[in-house]
Amino acid sequence: MGYPDTFEGYCVDSPKSWNVFHKSELKPKPFGDHDIDVQIECCGVCGSDVHTITGGWGEFEGPLCVGHEVVGKAVKVGSQVKEIKKGDRVGVGAQVWACLKCEVCKSKNENYCPHMVDTYNSNYEDGSVAHGGWANYIRAHDYFVFKIPDALPSEAAAPLLCAGITTYSPLVRADVCPGKKVAICVIGGLGHLAIQFAAALGAETYALTHTPAKAEQAKKLGAKEAIITTEEGWADKWAFAFDFILNCSDMTHTFDLKTYMSTLKVGGQFHMVGLPDEPLPGMKARAFASNAAKVTRSHLGNHQEMDEMLKLCAEKGIKPIIETTDLSPDGCKKAVESVRDNHVRYRYVLTGFDKAFGSK
Amino acid sequence: MGYPDTFEGYCVDSPKSWNVFHKSELKPKPFGDHDIDVQIECCGVCGSDVHTITGGWGEFEGPLCVGHEVVGKAVKVGSQVKEIKKGDRVGVGAQVWACLKCEVCKSKNENYCPHMVDTYNSNYEDGSVAHGGWANYIRAHDYFVFKIPDALPSEAAAPLLCAGITTYSPLVRADVCPGKKVAICVIGGLGHLAIQFAAALGAETYALTHTPAKAEQAKKLGAKEAIITTEEGWADKWAFAFDFILNCSDMTHTFDLKTYMSTLKVGGQFHMVGLPDEPLPGMKARAFASNAAKVTRSHLGNHQEMDEMLKLCAEKGIKPIIETTDLSPDGCKKAVESVRDNHVRYRYVLTGFDKAFGSK
Repeated sequence: MGYPDTFEGYCVDSPKSWNVFHKSELKPKPFGDHDIDVQIECCGVCGSDVHTITGGWGEFEGPLCVGHEVVGKAVKVGSQVKEIKKGDRVGVGAQVWACLKCEVCKSKNENYCPHMVDTYNSNYEDGSVAHGGWANYIRAHDYFVFKIPDALPSEAAAPLLCAGITTYSPLVRADVCPGKKVAICVIGGLGHLAIQFAAALGAETYALTHTPAKAEQAKKLGAKEAIITTEEGWADKWAFAFDFILNCSDMTHTFDLKTYMSTLKVGGQFHMVGLPDEPLPGMKARAFASNAAKVTRSHLGNHQEMDEMLKLCAEKGIKPIIETTDLSPDGCKKAVESVRDNHVRYRYVLTGFDKAFGSK
Repeated sequence: MGYPDTFEGYCVDSPKSWNVFHKSELKPKPFGDHDIDVQIECCGVCGSDVHTITGGWGEFEGPLCVGHEVVGKAVKVGSQVKEIKKGDRVGVGAQVWACLKCEVCKSKNENYCPHMVDTYNSNYEDGSVAHGGWANYIRAHDYFVFKIPDALPSEAAAPLLCAGITTYSPLVRADVCPGKKVAICVIGGLGHLAIQFAAALGAETYALTHTPAKAEQAKKLGAKEAIITTEEGWADKWAFAFDFILNCSDMTHTFDLKTYMSTLKVGGQFHMVGLPDEPLPGMKARAFASNAAKVTRSHLGNHQEMDEMLKLCAEKGIKPIIETTDLSPDGCKKAVESVRDNHVRYRYVLTGFDKAFGSK
């Protein structure tokens, strides 16, 4: 078989062999009126991919093809699709379907639809399996397929589809704007984008980092100052300082949360977007009492925010800092190990899809 | 000695003898230009009093006089006091001082001032000790002394000074109003006031209770429906239902928080005002991910909110349901044991201060 009946992707079989990738045939959902098939040009590597394949978020059934920062070309477009034309350069993020009918969807929160289908390791209501983007093709509902502005190179656009929207949405939902003080916690794949977004939205932006060597980088990205959180008593001079902290770490279980929370203004938000495998540190309710800090996290963003974010990036020259490697067993292995070991600066993108699938 | 040099209050000596009260002499702070002395007529009994005297919130040095729901008569008024006149009927809540100069205070968040002085078990910057209201007199800064509207009997006003403001402030800060769905969790000293406030503010108000026998009471107070949280799967039909949950329980450490959070709309707030001795239940960050729920708590409210709340109560006939007992060793013992054992319906108020101190 082959496209359009089946796709081909680089897969892992189980958490035990999480860094061993092999090409497998993938059966997509039946093509629907709102579906778009995308021939993939490149795909980012996300912390979620690594949490998933290592079993940190639970068991899975292999072969599993991950990848949810997809950029490619729309090659087949369902009869009900209006915004996207065949041949358009498009992106697909970490969600490929929602009911678009429930109250949650109708409130423009389809990224929380209780019926949502994630881009991979997820099932449609008919039992079909959603497969990720380390593959030659991906099929997604058109509400979750986005035109990529011409000003953005594909490799730079890919990480925006997950890391970008994940950090952009909470910033705009918290009304980050001129006059606000925002701290971005840890400068990594998510954080280095978040700094650029917060600064572009006009906030006085600070970076919180345990890696002094990243301080200069943070300033280049738009931070007014980098605050070194390994220094004893670092939080004392920042008491009641920030309107909003975007915590991009997936090691929050190791944090002294109360200290971070103490740097928030009254009613400020400690907003998590990294998703650790481990439970959060235990807290007493009184940890919140000194400033009514709100602790929360979010999941991606909505359709409108994705469009806005891509437009902002195109207009303001916001780009992820990326390393690239070929889609291959070796390339995938190198990429996931780098992400796991926190060695990537700052986001990996898999390229060379034409070579991998002999499409050229 | 005696007033104005010393006050007299009913005190405990240590957590071991938490329910043994005896009359002791209390030395107030030196009288300042902004201070008001209140001759006390009655004082509520708050969960905080019990947490404090039982040592749940830490050790203390006795003799300790608790009580921070004070109503009485202004008998001495500092030269800089403008709003309160000698003879006015006034109330004092759980805070008696803030710097009123820092950024926190200037943002009308003096209830989070880092220099704040609690009504008891707290020290002024000069080392003076603040003493609570189970006493003949209390001394407080005029910013923390409030005129009691004529329509409110003193015994009914007393619990508003802490239980009232504690529940009113988070509701108004969360913009609870017509069109919003609000759930009040547990119907007790705080919750039975919160239901009345939420309903008076125009929200569609629900009560969450583990005590079916309280359902009718909740409806009388203004709840549209009482949801029984001991029923298996109670939360299923309330998924994404509420804009705001005000959790008035001080047993949150026993809650399945994820289930409660699942009943919030996207971005909704699980707001705690009870303060358990024990840490919150451990949670994974992903517990927040299905609806971006915000977990938070608050501490009292500000000056303006206290005035608004007292006015609202006077206008709408909002009153606590109270039991009263005399201020005496037996009365204090009965009151604190009832609060600890959760037997009070719904708020205790100590009365008979004239008899206790022979002032009449």
